[in-house]
Amino acid sequence: MNNDSSSRIVERLSAWIAGAAPGARLPSTRSLVAEFHASPVTVQKALQTLTARGLVESRPGVGTFVRAVRTARPADYGWQTAALRASQGPRRTAVTALRDAPNHVIAFHSGYPDRELLPERLVRTALARAARSDAAISRPPASGLPELQTWFAQVLAATTPAGIAPPTPADVVVLPGSQSGLSSIFRALPGNGQPVLMESPTYWGAILAAAQVGVPVVPVPSGPDGPDPGELARAFEESGSRLFYAQPNYANPTGAQWSADRRREILDVARQYGAFIVEDDWAHDFGITTSPVPLAGMDDSGHVVYLRSLTKSVSPAVRVAAVIARGPARERLQADRAAESMYVSGLLQAAALDVVTQPGWQAHLRSLRHQLQSRRDFLVASLREHAPEVHITRVPDGGLNLWVRLPDAVDPVRLGADCEREGVMIAAGAEWFPAEPAGPYLRLNYAGPNPAGFGEGARIIGRCMSTQLTGR
Amino acid sequence: MNNDSSSRIVERLSAWIAGAAPGARLPSTRSLVAEFHASPVTVQKALQTLTARGLVESRPGVGTFVRAVRTARPADYGWQTAALRASQGPRRTAVTALRDAPNHVIAFHSGYPDRELLPERLVRTALARAARSDAAISRPPASGLPELQTWFAQVLAATTPAGIAPPTPADVVVLPGSQSGLSSIFRALPGNGQPVLMESPTYWGAILAAAQVGVPVVPVPSGPDGPDPGELARAFEESGSRLFYAQPNYANPTGAQWSADRRREILDVARQYGAFIVEDDWAHDFGITTSPVPLAGMDDSGHVVYLRSLTKSVSPAVRVAAVIARGPARERLQADRAAESMYVSGLLQAAALDVVTQPGWQAHLRSLRHQLQSRRDFLVASLREHAPEVHITRVPDGGLNLWVRLPDAVDPVRLGADCEREGVMIAAGAEWFPAEPAGPYLRLNYAGPNPAGFGEGARIIGRCMSTQLTGR
Repeated sequence: MNNDSSSRIVERLSAWIAGAAPGARLPSTRSLVAEFHASPVTVQKALQTLTARGLVESRPGVGTFVRAVRTARPADYGWQTAALRASQGPRRTAVTALRDAPNHVIAFHSGYPDRELLPERLVRTALARAARSDAAISRPPASGLPELQTWFAQVLAATTPAGIAPPTPADVVVLPGSQSGLSSIFRALPGNGQPVLMESPTYWGAILAAAQVGVPVVPVPSGPDGPDPGELARAFEESGSRLFYAQPNYANPTGAQWSADRRREILDVARQYGAFIVEDDWAHDFGITTSPVPLAGMDDSGHVVYLRSLTKSVSPAVRVAAVIARGPARERLQADRAAESMYVSGLLQAAALDVVTQPGWQAHLRSLRHQLQSRRDFLVASLREHAPEVHITRVPDGGLNLWVRLPDAVDPVRLGADCEREGVMIAAGAEWFPAEPAGPYLRLNYAGPNPAGFGEGARIIGRCMSTQLTGR
Repeated sequence: MNNDSSSRIVERLSAWIAGAAPGARLPSTRSLVAEFHASPVTVQKALQTLTARGLVESRPGVGTFVRAVRTARPADYGWQTAALRASQGPRRTAVTALRDAPNHVIAFHSGYPDRELLPERLVRTALARAARSDAAISRPPASGLPELQTWFAQVLAATTPAGIAPPTPADVVVLPGSQSGLSSIFRALPGNGQPVLMESPTYWGAILAAAQVGVPVVPVPSGPDGPDPGELARAFEESGSRLFYAQPNYANPTGAQWSADRRREILDVARQYGAFIVEDDWAHDFGITTSPVPLAGMDDSGHVVYLRSLTKSVSPAVRVAAVIARGPARERLQADRAAESMYVSGLLQAAALDVVTQPGWQAHLRSLRHQLQSRRDFLVASLREHAPEVHITRVPDGGLNLWVRLPDAVDPVRLGADCEREGVMIAAGAEWFPAEPAGPYLRLNYAGPNPAGFGEGARIIGRCMSTQLTGR
């Protein structure tokens, strides 16, 4: 209600300002309070909004005034072309997974879970508690809050069998999100000029981070069971790379989860080539019919650099992740993080730790598992019914995505445009391939808003596809 | 009180755990509640602390157990040496300004303002409000919350004279702290292989960011009045650089504020060489006897890339800053930020905007000005009284630091060690020089805790210095 009356004042004053001369003085707060029958706080809020919109400016102790709109000649920045030279970094590309969707749209394109899948109450309580704590006003150590380092280490240690030394809190570097971790890893770990091996297809954010850093990417084909160890060995051999980026659990986009044998084989190949495996355990909290088993739990020789994020499962506002690494690699990563961003907001760290150590967090994860399962199953069933030409490569045991192969004759980009016109957003598979796509694929995310619309969404995908296939 | 009883339980249970066998089961929450006469919440908190310390593990629905401490052979990570090759990035160096100080120490070394100089009440209220808002649970646009972009643009626009096109919200990219901005600027803006010019001495974080990115730094001497335009022109000419990093207001460490003439001359040189000036307006909120005048307000041709942070003046937990740039440079920076960290926590952005748009923020800045003035003046007077050999190069009109020249015979590093043994932490000037230090300098920060100790601190500096000078 407070919000409503503030918006009403903003609206009425904006109209008044539109007709006023620059520099004209607004009525005093007191007279606005009287005029709008609103509280001083509400009036103040409205004035702040007008200030933020650039319509008025306030001079403390004097009053609030209509801002003069200044016009000036538009500039040409051509001179910058000479200073900047050719671009070396990544081009600004519109990534489908980051696009916002209007409310009425059926959204299969995003990589982020919908709000209804987040532990909203835990997050709000934790943030409010952190706002009252010391973390709101102090600077944490560069490696992270010690209690949070401990938590990250312990969760991984819990998967470490006897005989393998578990990671310690000192192995943990807290990050402002896993994307920052990827950038640091690709900056700090490849020796001079060495390329990075990546599963293909793989997470577009990793491909982007490597491009930003200027590290060449060598794709290693990967399918529903993960990469083939022989192909991986050949890629290490041919490329001289010492770094393999992979997602052993519920890989994005394929949904692959490596078997125990596959995990052992891949780790053996990395050992043989003296190489790192960057394990991006992005879906650690998104198991459905299995549980994630970190590869890093099998290794205490520093071969696996483990990346774990809380942003997706806790809240997009709680940008907290961690990298766990041992030996000199950990030092390189720590140095890179310190130079890049010094430290991560202690408030976000405290809130993240609070959320994941509440009893409600385990309850949330259990309920999330069921929700993801029914969303996944409904999407699979809807596609089988309404878009039978779509080949589901694997019904994933966890994660947020279904990776589907289209018939060869279907152009995924055109399909995306056709579907969008009918209110369905999908992501063409090409964005997940470090090189050319190996075929026409789609990634369908089943964690978006409004799962009740999945049936209708599948129907529209099926219809748009058969229009392409039949030419009408 | 709640805290106290929780600590008491932690202490008692830790003692019990020390004597218990691995896997032993802790008493139930109910019996702990009875035994310690504490609430279930307090007992739960104590168990969480024990879990975070790695002493116990809880199996939901079963109970809490003493963790087995596993021992395993220590690993050697020598194989990593081959994979990592020689280090290209910055070495992990212990930066003096980031060192924590024990409570009783007189701290002149830090770069961060003490808690008493922060708008603590505004920060806590804003964070609590943000925790209840949409920002706690949603993902903001990659460039930042539009209202915050607007605010950053308007503050700079307010300093833009008529005839110069003011920056617009679309020119603003919100950052997770200014250090990230420096990294992005040094990655994205220098053409292939071009060096960066920097004032010398200058902010160590900028030197570090350039080292991380692998951009060579060319120092341009700068003093109490800022850099000499002729030297700057020569440096552009000789180096082929197109980027000059500078702090025109209350430079860190020298405290220099460029005169209006100096600003015009420097901008003319940059125009002549088709170059960018990166204006790090770090001390925008720290004016004392003058107000900061951004160089960026004089430029609408995209030459000045403007960096403004709220971390230091709002709270270390609110890691929010912005870069304002126009033309292709802005696109390059936006692309780099997206690849590096995708977006900045919307919660921190909402809280930052809330703080700086409250009426209390202006009142806070006025009070801050007085506090900084009396701290600065007391330190200056104390040094003049107790350490007269210290030459104060300039009493700064703003900022947080006093830059002092020591007699040639004094070794600043030894002085630092001697002072620290007597409970005073200082920072030797060498960390602020991109190349060799131009002389024995100290940076003394007057924004640290316990300003009442400044007199004693100056006395100790004076004493340690004369021990060095007289050899006893």
